[in-house]
Amino acid sequence: MARWEPGARERMLMAALDAFTDEGFEQATVAGIAARAGVTERTFFRHFADKREVLFEGSDLLEEVVTGAVAAAPAGLPPVELVTSAFEALGPFFAERQEFARRRLAVISANASLLERELLKLHSLKSATADALRARGLPDPDAVLTAEFGGTIFQVGFQRWMNDPAAVDIAAHIRRTSTELTALVARDRAG
Amino acid sequence: MARWEPGARERMLMAALDAFTDEGFEQATVAGIAARAGVTERTFFRHFADKREVLFEGSDLLEEVVTGAVAAAPAGLPPVELVTSAFEALGPFFAERQEFARRRLAVISANASLLERELLKLHSLKSATADALRARGLPDPDAVLTAEFGGTIFQVGFQRWMNDPAAVDIAAHIRRTSTELTALVARDRAG
Repeated sequence: MARWEPGARERMLMAALDAFTDEGFEQATVAGIAARAGVTERTFFRHFADKREVLFEGSDLLEEVVTGAVAAAPAGLPPVELVTSAFEALGPFFAERQEFARRRLAVISANASLLERELLKLHSLKSATADALRARGLPDPDAVLTAEFGGTIFQVGFQRWMNDPAAVDIAAHIRRTSTELTALVARDRAG
Repeated sequence: MARWEPGARERMLMAALDAFTDEGFEQATVAGIAARAGVTERTFFRHFADKREVLFEGSDLLEEVVTGAVAAAPAGLPPVELVTSAFEALGPFFAERQEFARRRLAVISANASLLERELLKLHSLKSATADALRARGLPDPDAVLTAEFGGTIFQVGFQRWMNDPAAVDIAAHIRRTSTELTALVARDRAG
């Protein structure tokens, strides 16, 4: 058997979502997912450690993109602008993934332990972002507060992007959410 | 045996933390916790559904305090001030709980599934806060963004309170964190 299977990874991702949706996450098996995708179980395990990994495989890369963008940002940006532009850098990562993201969320929302895992990933992303901000010389509490601001605009921007029928780039939703959160806070200072 | 055991609840809370710290959360048993506290297992189960409940027993009340304070706040407050005052209302809830909170966090941080449960509770608190803000007529996205702002100042303020040797009221730490996050965002608008 050839070790190179064109499109196999994408087929396995979609087959896994089909299996989780039809059978439930707990009941679905790697054997069943592999059969739906037309690959062997061995091929599945060359790509994913287990069935749960299908749902969380991108999160390390996502963290690298954001922390890399924090590190590479020009000097002198104010913190909120810095973190907003770092999360905007996720645009290419999420391009073409809207349908996957929607179906994935439906699976995760139906399972408490998957939802807890998802929240732990977001927590880890915010901690890594705070570390990257500290490495640039931003002291606490600003590093933590800026990372939390970033986590908020990412979460809310992500939701809006997922529900956007026009599938506009996630970066635009993140930017817009940052602008709105900033305006909301400014309204208080004016009041 | 009398059904009224003076101080039994407090003794069980501290005995459970001792057991989790000494033996590890997974290894600790209800029988061992009850023995440390000098009560029967039956008494333990009159107070807590299981050993995990010792660590999360207050979270429903905490959610009630915050959403109740959102509902009861005077009309006309800007959103960030409204949510800041709602989280300040947690002061009495956390009074006298600093040592418990510190020891509890050490147990939770050592166990991935407990940390995931903790994050799920925070997620639930933010969702309930957003619902309470919507019920007051605050539209989305402001309701979600304001609830996220509240979650951030609560998390960061909580950490600061826990590490505060003077054990100043948690409300003061929450207010200070709100002021600092507001200033951080304002710095961007000025820049």
